[in-house]
Amino acid sequence: MPTMTAAQKQAQAKAQYNAFLAACPSQQLLARISDKWVTLVLSALGSGPDCTGEPRPMRYSELARVLAGVSPKMLSQTLRTLQRDGLLSRTATATVPVTVTYELTDLGLSLHRTVRQLKRWAETHMDEVAANRAVHDGGDAGTTV
Amino acid sequence: MPTMTAAQKQAQAKAQYNAFLAACPSQQLLARISDKWVTLVLSALGSGPDCTGEPRPMRYSELARVLAGVSPKMLSQTLRTLQRDGLLSRTATATVPVTVTYELTDLGLSLHRTVRQLKRWAETHMDEVAANRAVHDGGDAGTTV
Repeated sequence: MPTMTAAQKQAQAKAQYNAFLAACPSQQLLARISDKWVTLVLSALGSGPDCTGEPRPMRYSELARVLAGVSPKMLSQTLRTLQRDGLLSRTATATVPVTVTYELTDLGLSLHRTVRQLKRWAETHMDEVAANRAVHDGGDAGTTV
Repeated sequence: MPTMTAAQKQAQAKAQYNAFLAACPSQQLLARISDKWVTLVLSALGSGPDCTGEPRPMRYSELARVLAGVSPKMLSQTLRTLQRDGLLSRTATATVPVTVTYELTDLGLSLHRTVRQLKRWAETHMDEVAANRAVHDGGDAGTTV
């Protein structure tokens, strides 16, 4: 097969896959990345432990602190899956005790840019959605819209 | 309270909500919109029945056809939730039989722009993720990276 440019490869992949179809593997991939913890882990790794900086490697304990409320099981499982998919890399350094860090790969960075928007959308539109729910559930309140 | 501009309201909402925190309602909203069917319904309504056009109202049967493989129960449930959250509107027209159409609201359009990218990411990077999984699962294949 002749070598293709990155743009040609992307165009070909786009033509091959259609996530609307249940039988298409890209729908399973969409299901996997449509996950609250995937979004939060990628967002955390993409903005650093202070949540405002640049992408940088983070230790397990730093991730657990930023993602307040995640269970150790869920965090470990999410990290393993993201590593298998090539979205993040895991590095163990031979210190005492061993230091393990996680870092976004280029592929992970490309997805990070999208899921970060999803997180921001939820934070920015929370009030509006809550108001819509109140109107929807509250019968007569709906007449004021 | 003095009236605020849309930009000021957004800035305030952003300061109030932090989806990293389990106790923050925006994390529940993130969990709700991090859903394969939410992404696919919003993508369908945002690109029309031919999947390439502009946002336009769609009938239930058109949505079911585009989202090949969705169960009627899951589609109805997703539509109800999105309607309650104010992301789409449902219109019943008094024809025989009654015509029911669904259409993105402005709020739904704003989320559509993000979830469409998520769908495209899955379609565009499927090959790359599959290759990463093969390397990860395949032991010695990993040495070629």
